[in-house]
Amino acid sequence: MTRLFNTPAAFADEALEGFVAAHRRWVRRVPGGVVRATPTAPGQVAVVIGGGSGHYPAFSGLVGRGLAHGAAVGNVFASPSAQQVHQVAKAAHGGGGVLLTFGNYAGDVLHFGQAEERLNAEGIDCRTVVVTDDISSAPAEESAKRRGVAGDLAVFKTAAAAAEAGLPLDEVVRLARLANARTRSFGIAFSGCTLPGADAPLFTVPESRMAVGLGIHGEPGLSEAAVPTADEAAELLVSTLLGELPEGVETPRGLRAGVILNGLGAVKYEELFVVYRTVARLLDEAGVVAVDPEVGELVTSFDMAGVSLTLFWLTEELEPLWTAPADAPAYRKGALGPTADVSPESPENPESPEEQPEQTTVPQASEESRAAARTVLDALAAVVRTVDEHADELGRIDAVAGDGDHGIGMRRGSEAAYEAGRRALGLGAGAGTLLCHAADAWADRAGGTSGALWGVILRQVGTALGDADRPDAAAVATGVAAAADGVMRLGKAEVGDKTMVDVLVPLAGALGEAVAEGQPLAAAWDAAATAAEAAAKATAELLPRLGRARPHAEKSLGTPDAGAVSLALIARAVHGVLAAKND
Amino acid sequence: MTRLFNTPAAFADEALEGFVAAHRRWVRRVPGGVVRATPTAPGQVAVVIGGGSGHYPAFSGLVGRGLAHGAAVGNVFASPSAQQVHQVAKAAHGGGGVLLTFGNYAGDVLHFGQAEERLNAEGIDCRTVVVTDDISSAPAEESAKRRGVAGDLAVFKTAAAAAEAGLPLDEVVRLARLANARTRSFGIAFSGCTLPGADAPLFTVPESRMAVGLGIHGEPGLSEAAVPTADEAAELLVSTLLGELPEGVETPRGLRAGVILNGLGAVKYEELFVVYRTVARLLDEAGVVAVDPEVGELVTSFDMAGVSLTLFWLTEELEPLWTAPADAPAYRKGALGPTADVSPESPENPESPEEQPEQTTVPQASEESRAAARTVLDALAAVVRTVDEHADELGRIDAVAGDGDHGIGMRRGSEAAYEAGRRALGLGAGAGTLLCHAADAWADRAGGTSGALWGVILRQVGTALGDADRPDAAAVATGVAAAADGVMRLGKAEVGDKTMVDVLVPLAGALGEAVAEGQPLAAAWDAAATAAEAAAKATAELLPRLGRARPHAEKSLGTPDAGAVSLALIARAVHGVLAAKND
Repeated sequence: MTRLFNTPAAFADEALEGFVAAHRRWVRRVPGGVVRATPTAPGQVAVVIGGGSGHYPAFSGLVGRGLAHGAAVGNVFASPSAQQVHQVAKAAHGGGGVLLTFGNYAGDVLHFGQAEERLNAEGIDCRTVVVTDDISSAPAEESAKRRGVAGDLAVFKTAAAAAEAGLPLDEVVRLARLANARTRSFGIAFSGCTLPGADAPLFTVPESRMAVGLGIHGEPGLSEAAVPTADEAAELLVSTLLGELPEGVETPRGLRAGVILNGLGAVKYEELFVVYRTVARLLDEAGVVAVDPEVGELVTSFDMAGVSLTLFWLTEELEPLWTAPADAPAYRKGALGPTADVSPESPENPESPEEQPEQTTVPQASEESRAAARTVLDALAAVVRTVDEHADELGRIDAVAGDGDHGIGMRRGSEAAYEAGRRALGLGAGAGTLLCHAADAWADRAGGTSGALWGVILRQVGTALGDADRPDAAAVATGVAAAADGVMRLGKAEVGDKTMVDVLVPLAGALGEAVAEGQPLAAAWDAAATAAEAAAKATAELLPRLGRARPHAEKSLGTPDAGAVSLALIARAVHGVLAAKND
Repeated sequence: MTRLFNTPAAFADEALEGFVAAHRRWVRRVPGGVVRATPTAPGQVAVVIGGGSGHYPAFSGLVGRGLAHGAAVGNVFASPSAQQVHQVAKAAHGGGGVLLTFGNYAGDVLHFGQAEERLNAEGIDCRTVVVTDDISSAPAEESAKRRGVAGDLAVFKTAAAAAEAGLPLDEVVRLARLANARTRSFGIAFSGCTLPGADAPLFTVPESRMAVGLGIHGEPGLSEAAVPTADEAAELLVSTLLGELPEGVETPRGLRAGVILNGLGAVKYEELFVVYRTVARLLDEAGVVAVDPEVGELVTSFDMAGVSLTLFWLTEELEPLWTAPADAPAYRKGALGPTADVSPESPENPESPEEQPEQTTVPQASEESRAAARTVLDALAAVVRTVDEHADELGRIDAVAGDGDHGIGMRRGSEAAYEAGRRALGLGAGAGTLLCHAADAWADRAGGTSGALWGVILRQVGTALGDADRPDAAAVATGVAAAADGVMRLGKAEVGDKTMVDVLVPLAGALGEAVAEGQPLAAAWDAAATAAEAAAKATAELLPRLGRARPHAEKSLGTPDAGAVSLALIARAVHGVLAAKND
């Protein structure tokens, strides 16, 4: 369990700050994450990695010469926001284009994808390569749906060495994809992880049992088995991975493989070595040559007790990239020239990233819209209170089928939205502008899938309200309907997928109907909130859309979706504000 | 807790084997431990470190260019034997002499000291430097009694860099002592460690409490306090260390210090970074410049949840040694030339050390002595059974004031002694030679303080019995009396110090008296065993001699000494064999 923290909400930021303070020779802080202490060589492709916090050394510990040029660092188990990825990529870019590479999780795909679009729109050539090495998360025929786990390192290392060798972006992308296609991981776990401030692990495994086929966000495994001896564990890991060789390969005999025996967080080095002893023997017996094996913690899942094995099937082209020198805080290999001369005498080196310059002007707004903006801010305050009250509960619900970070993300997002709204109101913003500022702040600060989607919701409603007129019920209904469309498009989800869409669509529908019937806003919203509550409850009967990628989806039957529940709670809280306004 | 192992007794050996398999570019296995993969440069001082297993990266992970030349690796939490240290030192020696450096623990002091004597006797110039950085283990006036914890790294690094720079042994010793005198550590813990196969931690800390001033062998702390925030923990660590500056220094302002924020085993990197963030700020505020800070696991205590801070107060002479490049499996800094070319294609590289050539001849023995040797072997078998039956209990008793490894050490030692005895008997050995072979095997295989002392006991008795005559009661009594003298001399212990001496002396006395009265051996031994049992019980009322170095000594009041109890148990088991022989 996690014991050393100040406030749980600040944990990821404070850890990153301390990490940078301890590793100035390798990295420097930029808005959104870290980049190498040394600038990217002109014309070199910049490899930018990233993901949630709680996986150290992934991702910030893997930034340095011969490895990543930068890492976008999200909150605990939450993807960084598109803005963070964009900022880190801009800081890392050396004129040779950018490769964004990360594990295959919905939130990361969303935010890195948005950043890619934005970078390309700005004239920076940018591509993404998604890591999908976890063979327990989908069958081989659907390997694109697999999660990324410790195989991240094989793909990152390959891409970075190719970039370091001066290859153009097309080649770096091709080699990174090849590395991903030839990397397979499989793991076991003995206990789940406990996030800072949480009072229970995300999942538990009965004493003397283990979970087989785990994820790195506290997702429980595919199945359970008795705790094995170290030798039996090694046999399970090796035989499972030898059971799925790269396409077109018949026998492992004579193959060469990069090997990563990865501790998930609470397994001791000595235990890993005892397991590796037998992994090495079994690979040798199978005729596989282990090249530059790595035994240690590379991609962790906070304090989860577990271990995974990764085999990276090398080719003549890939091997020199795997064995090339690298010098990152948590990964060093071979010899590189001297590191950046960052004098230890300079603790005054800027530690905190420069914040985005705060906006100091807002578009002109009518008196009516500025009055409405006050109500909107009251509504945001109610959202903060509701989220705060229910954060633990939302986290628990989310932990059943997700990664348990929903409460944290919603809290960070809603607080940031309120703060941005307050600042906008102070500058004289109308209701529309206030909501757009709040939207950006929520998406940026919360990260994760839900952060991006709440950004869409607030922005669509804000756009519909505008800054000119007193917002009427029709404008609100139009905005909410647009929000539902936007969320479905961006989240690639439909009704029945057990997401917030299952609540947002009926909410928009009920609101639209009531408004069309001529009901005033507060009454119409009451009907919409009631529909939302019923719909949220009903999600308990659904299976999540990501069923295959999250093999424990069945376990969520009987539990509603956390995103759906929080949306219904928020709808009810907003009604409270509208009803009070009406009085 | 430790989950991945095969048999607990094989854990340390198997971990070392896996470690070497994963790190062939850095190290190779030799009898007793590991040495660098590259030979020591001719004439260079060889720095040999070591200690028990369970502290990874200490000690094997700290072997490599710029760091140690070799590490002697004992069993879990048990010092390596003198023979192991001797073997590693011989393998590492490059003609420039040997520095043995290690933490200040009774078993290590004993075995490294014996190895030093033996190396010097063989014409290899050898010295020892003991690390004593843990300020919680004794007051400043008695700093020589302090334990060695994570400050090990500062002393090892200094000595190794001095050796690498080509300095002679005198200078390397001087600089290592200077480094030790300027290194201070202090730590806190939230839970004790659980050894492989054990079903409970060595100590527990109540929920939401922490132990202040911990050891690295599961020794509980000096006092207890409420679990602090990360910032409060940082403040406690920094202010405590700033409270004891190096001799002659009035203020920390303007000083430069190597900083080690060390995880004890079950604290996550992210937590360490959150703490380091504030450590860095507080040092900066105190005017201390942190030079090459290290934040991570450097000297662990198995899976103990805790953290320690080390400040290494640099001088102009010491700083370049602290910042010099190094390349070991678990510690790298700066850039060194290419590592040894150990082809990954060669899994046939010898992995297991060549064992000591087995002795194939023994001195001639009389028929009577060979017959007595059979009885001696029966007695050793009885010792094995007794130790095996009581190993868990002995470990539990030892954990009250010691490190809980007594049962493990006794088991390994007695088994090795029996095996060596069996081989000797097969070669026709007499009782004296059989016991001397058993003595060497016990000391070598068990390591730790008790291993060395049991080696002395068996050897003294064996010497008294000889191989010529049928051993009579007088010879046995003479041998046991000599054993008591030998143990007191080597262990520097007296009656009343709460050690096995408190049983061995009355046992020898009762045996001598009964034999002088003319009682036959079995009867005399019965009286001796009875005296031993009473004496063992009485040790519960004593305070351990190492009271100051082990500040929790008071906690052992009411519990007998584990070494005393095992000696009494063994005395009774041997009586069983003698009585049966008599029938």
